[in-house]
Order: sequence, then structure tokens, then C-alpha cells
Amino acid sequence: MKILILGANGYTGEPVAKYLSSKGHEVAAVDSYYKKHLMGSMGIKPLVEPGTMNKALKDHNITIIEADISQNNALDEIIRKCDPDTIIHLAQNPSAPYSMAGEDEAFDTMFNNLGVNMRLIYAVKKHNPNIHIIKLGTLGEYGCPNTPIPEGWFDCEYKGRTDKMLFPKKPHSIYHLSKVHDSDALAFSARVWGLRVTDLNQGFVYGDYDNNRFTYDAIFGTVLNRFMVQAVAGIPLTVYGKGGQTRGALHIKDTLQCIELAAENPAKAGEFRVFNQFTEQFSINSLAEKVKLAGNFMGYRVSINHIDNPRHELEDHFYKAENTSLMDLGLKPHLLTNERLAQMIQFVDKHKDKIDIGQIQPKIRWQA
Amino acid sequence: MKILILGANGYTGEPVAKYLSSKGHEVAAVDSYYKKHLMGSMGIKPLVEPGTMNKALKDHNITIIEADISQNNALDEIIRKCDPDTIIHLAQNPSAPYSMAGEDEAFDTMFNNLGVNMRLIYAVKKHNPNIHIIKLGTLGEYGCPNTPIPEGWFDCEYKGRTDKMLFPKKPHSIYHLSKVHDSDALAFSARVWGLRVTDLNQGFVYGDYDNNRFTYDAIFGTVLNRFMVQAVAGIPLTVYGKGGQTRGALHIKDTLQCIELAAENPAKAGEFRVFNQFTEQFSINSLAEKVKLAGNFMGYRVSINHIDNPRHELEDHFYKAENTSLMDLGLKPHLLTNERLAQMIQFVDKHKDKIDIGQIQPKIRWQA
Repeated sequence: MKILILGANGYTGEPVAKYLSSKGHEVAAVDSYYKKHLMGSMGIKPLVEPGTMNKALKDHNITIIEADISQNNALDEIIRKCDPDTIIHLAQNPSAPYSMAGEDEAFDTMFNNLGVNMRLIYAVKKHNPNIHIIKLGTLGEYGCPNTPIPEGWFDCEYKGRTDKMLFPKKPHSIYHLSKVHDSDALAFSARVWGLRVTDLNQGFVYGDYDNNRFTYDAIFGTVLNRFMVQAVAGIPLTVYGKGGQTRGALHIKDTLQCIELAAENPAKAGEFRVFNQFTEQFSINSLAEKVKLAGNFMGYRVSINHIDNPRHELEDHFYKAENTSLMDLGLKPHLLTNERLAQMIQFVDKHKDKIDIGQIQPKIRWQA
Repeated sequence: MKILILGANGYTGEPVAKYLSSKGHEVAAVDSYYKKHLMGSMGIKPLVEPGTMNKALKDHNITIIEADISQNNALDEIIRKCDPDTIIHLAQNPSAPYSMAGEDEAFDTMFNNLGVNMRLIYAVKKHNPNIHIIKLGTLGEYGCPNTPIPEGWFDCEYKGRTDKMLFPKKPHSIYHLSKVHDSDALAFSARVWGLRVTDLNQGFVYGDYDNNRFTYDAIFGTVLNRFMVQAVAGIPLTVYGKGGQTRGALHIKDTLQCIELAAENPAKAGEFRVFNQFTEQFSINSLAEKVKLAGNFMGYRVSINHIDNPRHELEDHFYKAENTSLMDLGLKPHLLTNERLAQMIQFVDKHKDKIDIGQIQPKIRWQA
């Protein structure tokens, strides 16, 4: 397949480009370095920094394109040149805390994410409506409803009548709100213009893949990666609030598998297909306990510290997201075993000298 | 009350300003003339054109402010100066056909509407979270589900569990999509920051009020006003497709009443309150028949012409939107009687010489 990856310089984008290329696909990788520059301007240094696409992807047979696809016509030219069957859309600002830092950051997140997403829709509509769009979304769009979370569609019943509808969402950050908007826009493009779309509502990702960018700071890092860094650095694991927050999660290798499965089994014309992309559910407390146990076993002194929750979220709630679709397509999960935890902690330890503990404490609070 | 009206130069905004001022409220009126300039640039002339706010509102005790509130800080200054209890947010591009004309128009609609809405949220959050935001939305956000349409909230049931959720929406134009985004952003602001919000999901509006701007063109006009102009001009009423499309509707005097009732009975802190704002439901065919009957009775030769539907919409469907909340607050509907139709047709006839039939045929098609 000819696959175009938007946002190929990220934690996920770079591994996806390498992985799909290694599987024999013809891959083109696009990034504007928006996030790389943003992190740089904020003084945030990842634990591992692979650098530009030219550097990180150099030993792979991948076409590298530096372009700002939020600009009119930029993506049109790329699509004309690469003629992709599939576009994997990862070109988004992915930070909830950043989006809640203030009005400027909220506008930056919202208009970057929506702008790129709308440019993508219009470019595909114009050049080849047959292209399959795979967009990485997040389970966080749903918040924590008191019901199970279906994979997008459900039979919505009201006053004795039913209709097939997209399940309502309750985002709790401007970032998550921007992702809800993106999902709605892509659902619209399938409904009205017949585009083919797969929306992957992903849980939080953990783990490393071939020295990809690995962040652990309070703004761009994900929770389990942060805990492992705290364990290695010998500082307490910071659990926000009560720690009963429960989330879907997956190893980054499973993200790669999921995207590959979605690409190889495309949505139909006019279909807005939704997969919940995670392999296991954990409470934050149980994650902290797992890291503590594994860390102690490996000789680190690990403690857990509950701190005031900077976010606006339920800390004790029902949570059950469904995730059978990708399993049915053949996903073979890499579960969070003690062995895998130990491997990941060893990886962090290898880069121990680069840990900057000043990046870890959350400074952005949701409530004004 | 001190009331700030955003978008006060429109078909609705100008009457709302006059009406609330006449009721003894202290009214400030804001507009950037975005829509007036846009219509001008497209060569669209309303049947009645009251001109700028200085001209249209001059004999009323209303503070007039020309400002582009999509710009950072513009609204902050206005709120500091006017110190409103209530902000009525009508400052949006309201045209579905315009938003579907092409990529530039889609971006213009989307980013104007979302930008102003987000500036409003941040300004209220910053200066006085106690301000009650009343935002005019549209029933069109819901599309035509196969269930009744609740007033926003419903008990969402999935796999034996329930949660109070906002009813799912299926917008069919970029404009309607932008309004869904606005509703979601305001719901977010109530959920996370405790703002007070009322979302009015309005049906289509008809009728004149004190020589307000009255459009009838294919881009900014609403259906019943257009039919009355066609009847007076002696050209066939253009029904899009089969005409079984059913919509909620209300006279503009009821829009004024509804907004007044919402303002006088504000939402609570942290409440995102949704009212469906219409008084009657009609199919497009039944509206055409009503205008034909009334027109014939008044001596016009009126015929009906079904044309290819330029829009993407169901033409034969279940439709039942609920609308008890505003009735319960005391709304006294001005129903679409033959007498009212006759009065409105007489109003159009008074301006007959200004009708430009070239504006009426739809030229923008939803499908690319």
C-alpha cells in the first residue's frame, strides 16, 4: 500500500513510519516540527530525542516531507505527488495540560488541530475520495460515563424509538474537546461526502520503540512512562488525586499493530468506523503499584505520593470501554507483564543521566 | 438587567436589542458588520436593509459598539466597560449554503464561529463567571434522527446502565457542524469551569419585526420568507426535492420572547441548559401549500415547483422535536395562522419593487 503519515516526527508517528515501511509498504512521512519546536520553546527535553525525520528515518526507505499542512494547498500538493491509498493522521497537538494553560494555548491547540483536520478532509475530497483516512483519536473524548463505552456507534433509544448514533462524549480538556470536534468533522465527511474514515479512540500509550522520542514531563508525557522515570530517578510516583481514575492503555507496539490492521482492512466508502484502541484497563493506583513492585524487585526504592489533582476529572468512577473490533481483526496484545515493565524500566535506566526531575511536577491547573 | 448582545446587526440581533431595551433592560449592542460586508461582497441585497447599528438602533436607548470580537482582548474590554448580567451570543455566520460553497467558505464559517465562541467563553471565565451566556443554536444540529429530539439532556442507556448525556447530533452542513462545536465548547465551559449557559436550539424563523433586515436569497434567507417573496414576485415556490423535510419553526416575535424568558430565568452556575426554541413543526410541502392558499386568497397566482435538492438531507423522515421548556416558562406563541401569513405577505408586497429574483435559485450544491 502507499501510505502517507501526517505527524511523523512524534512519539507515535516515527515508529509507525518505520514499522509500516518494514512491512513493505511505500511510506511517505510528513511533519512541520510544530510540536518539536513547541517543546523546545518550553524548555522540555525528552529522555530520548531522535531529532528530525531526516535523522530519525534515514536508514529506512521512506519519503520525507517537511511541510505545514495547516496551510491551504500544502496537503493538496503532497497528495498529488504521493497518491496514497491510506493517510494516517497523527498531526495534532496531543497535550491536554498545554491546552489548559491559558487562552493562547487553548486557541493554538484548537485551531491547529481543527485546521489540519479540515485541510485533510478537503484535500481528500478534492483529489481522491477513495483514500482511507485513519485518524488517531483518544478514549479521553468520552470522559467517564456511567455506562460502558461502545466503539462509536450504538442503538440510541429515546421514548420508545431507536436510531444508530455516535455515542455522546464528555471531554474534560480543550485538547480533548478539539479531538471531539475532529471526530465530528470526519463523521460529517463520511456522512455527507462519502469519505472512508477510521477513527481510533486510543488509550494512553507506554513503552519505547527503536529509540523514538520518549517524553516524561508533566505536559507531553504519558502516565506510565512518567512513573517509570520517577522510579529510576528515585523520586515518588506522583498520583493525581485519589488515583481511582481508570483508563484504557496499550504498549506502543500494539499501536503499530492496530494502525496496520486498520490500514489493511479499510473502512467502506461513506463509513465512519470507530475502534477503541487499547488492550487493558488500569486505575492510576494500580499502575503506580505495578511500577513500585517491579522497581523494588529491580533494586530501586520506589514510593507513591498522592498530590492535589491539577486536572478536572472523576477520581472514583465506573469505567468499561469495549475493544473487541481490533481483536477480531487479529490484534495480538503485548500486555503489561512484570517482564515487560522490567524491560521498560531498564530502557529508562540506560538514559538515567538525562532525567530532569524539574519537568515532572504538574504546574498547569484545570480550574482557573 | 444589563444585557450585552453580540451580533446585533442581524435579522435577529437588531430586533432583540430593540425589544429588550423597550422592556427596560440596559442594552449594549455589538457587531463587526462581518455578515453585512460578506453579503455586500456577494452582491446579495436584502428586501429590507436597516443599515448600520447607528442607523437602525438610533431612536433607542442602546449603547452601540462596533468591534471584531474574534480578536484577542476585544471582548474583554467590552465586558469590563458594560459589566453585563447576560450576554446574548448571536455573532455567527448563520448560512449553511455559504459554508458548503467551498473550502475557503467552510474555513471562514468554521473559524469565525468557533473563534468568537471561544473568545466569549474565555472572556466570561476571566472577568465574571457569573454572567449568563445565552447562545443561539439551531435544531439543525440534530439532523433528523429516527427518535424524538429531547431538549439537550436525556437518559442515555447502554448495556443496562444509564447516564445523563447530551443527545447525539448529526449535522448536515459545515455551518451546522460549527454550531455543534460551539454547543460542545459551551457545555465544556459549564462542566469544567462552572459557567452558566443556555443553548437555544432554534427552528427556522420567519416574519418581520420593525423593518429589520429581511433576506430571501438562496444563501441567507429562510424558507418561509423566501416562499412569501416568490408568491409576491409571481414565480413558483421552489421546494427542494420531495418536500417531506420537516422542521421546527417560529415567528421572530417568539424568538424575542424566548430570549427574554431565558434571560429572566438564568441557568445555574455550572449548568448547560438546552431549550428547543420553536412553536410548530411543518413539512416544507405544507409550508408551500399554506403560502399558496394564502397567496391565492389575496389574489396572487402562486404555483409550486419541486427542484433538485441542492442539500444533503432526508426528504421523508420521522421528526418530533420536544419544546415544552420555554412554554413552561410562559412563552405565548404567535402561530402561523392564515391571518399572520396574510400580514407577512402584505409586508413583502410593500417592498415588492426591490425583489431581485436572480438571488433566489440555489447555486451551491452539498455534494462535490
